[in-house]
Amino acid sequence: MSAATELLKVQENKKSIVCVGLDLDRKRVPAKYNDSIKGLYDFAERVIEATSDIVCAYKPNVAFFEELGPEGFSLLEKIVKRIPDDVTVIIDHKVGDIGNTAAHYASALFERYGADWVTINPYMGYDAIRPFLEYKDKGVFVLCLTSNSGSRDFQFMHVVNKPIYIYVAEKVAYWDKEQNLGLVVGATHPQQLRDIREAAKEVPILIPGIGAQGGDLEQAVLAGTVNFTRTAVINVSRSVLFASQEDDFEKASRAEVERLNGEINAMREELQKQSE
Amino acid sequence: MSAATELLKVQENKKSIVCVGLDLDRKRVPAKYNDSIKGLYDFAERVIEATSDIVCAYKPNVAFFEELGPEGFSLLEKIVKRIPDDVTVIIDHKVGDIGNTAAHYASALFERYGADWVTINPYMGYDAIRPFLEYKDKGVFVLCLTSNSGSRDFQFMHVVNKPIYIYVAEKVAYWDKEQNLGLVVGATHPQQLRDIREAAKEVPILIPGIGAQGGDLEQAVLAGTVNFTRTAVINVSRSVLFASQEDDFEKASRAEVERLNGEINAMREELQKQSE
Repeated sequence: MSAATELLKVQENKKSIVCVGLDLDRKRVPAKYNDSIKGLYDFAERVIEATSDIVCAYKPNVAFFEELGPEGFSLLEKIVKRIPDDVTVIIDHKVGDIGNTAAHYASALFERYGADWVTINPYMGYDAIRPFLEYKDKGVFVLCLTSNSGSRDFQFMHVVNKPIYIYVAEKVAYWDKEQNLGLVVGATHPQQLRDIREAAKEVPILIPGIGAQGGDLEQAVLAGTVNFTRTAVINVSRSVLFASQEDDFEKASRAEVERLNGEINAMREELQKQSE
Repeated sequence: MSAATELLKVQENKKSIVCVGLDLDRKRVPAKYNDSIKGLYDFAERVIEATSDIVCAYKPNVAFFEELGPEGFSLLEKIVKRIPDDVTVIIDHKVGDIGNTAAHYASALFERYGADWVTINPYMGYDAIRPFLEYKDKGVFVLCLTSNSGSRDFQFMHVVNKPIYIYVAEKVAYWDKEQNLGLVVGATHPQQLRDIREAAKEVPILIPGIGAQGGDLEQAVLAGTVNFTRTAVINVSRSVLFASQEDDFEKASRAEVERLNGEINAMREELQKQSE
């Protein structure tokens, strides 16, 4: 089964297109858990236990683990092992390097750390992505149009008559021979998200930027999922992970995922009806 | 002292603009050293001991350490500590993420792993770079035009009348308020390297692609260093690190650096004479 089909299957099983970003920022983790590696693990485990039946994916961002030194990578390894097999693991690292080097990142992220999908930066072109695609049952989300303000510096530049992010989307759609490529598009750019979906109809789109970053949830759902053969993964990090500083924080995390699932799934039904 | 001035000072002290890439690929490290973390450390230590008086920098690429799991990061930490203080440490990781996350990479690479300079991918724009620039005595090499074949996929696209890599060079020159920004430009693109130098006259340029990748050394030296207030760092990895599989491999590594220094320094003198 291709990585894209597998992802779709998980979403159907879980009745959820929500991904929770596991960005273990020690400044935000409840005080009782933020002063040791064990504490951080316990915190992540409680959030995972409370939510793994109602999310399609978890997305640990490597920056927060790398900052903790070698032990941080042991923590990442342990957290990924704790994620049930029926949930997708997206390791968010946004690297990209020449082919020879990229092969070592692919080996690290897929084989050592157990990612099902990874995020990759497109700037270095196809040979930075190819070694990842050789893992045919694993997937790669390529940065297309990111959610941050700096996305305006280069990604919006027009080449002939199209912005660069459209070229990235078209290339990724073209390179996607094994249904194991996707795109990262921030929900902070709703109109562009629709254009990108037109340029790359059949690839999954990982959509960050909902919640703390202020992205447009309805547009994300519309562009991402209105035709069910296309997949979107809506990522939320801070609003779920740090939903509460109280002792029963995991209840708040679960409630926030439930609220999102309810809202998103109602939208999907409504949009599906309209399109019939 | 700014990071760029500090780098120039190291190059003057060492009479070398050569950087050795510490890409500890286990398939290439001599057999006696490639089957344990201790072996890899001993190998790197012998190369460092044999060359640290005649290079300006070492550049470990994170991919090769990440592949080794948590212990790989202990190895990176130990190798960086073993590099003498009077040699520049460039940690090559090519990441780039939204500001909040980038701050954690900056803390990891500068504070935890002891980088003097890092490499960063420009695709996500200024807010992915800014947290690194807050370390005013540390430096950032931004990918501009990379040495690999995939560089043709996006970096050469023309926006109005200029390729994207020129926009990256111009932006980086503009952002460089504290003399702590530089560019990565592959020696495999000699003509473009000269154009980039015109667009960013005062920033250091890290130039990979000499050696195994077939880049043009003379053009790299010409564009990088003909005016001595501008700095280039010529990176070589495989041809120095894996100069020999024999027991006295470090002698071969040193001989290769000496050969390169001799060739480069003779060119620099000649070019300097011509420009006077």
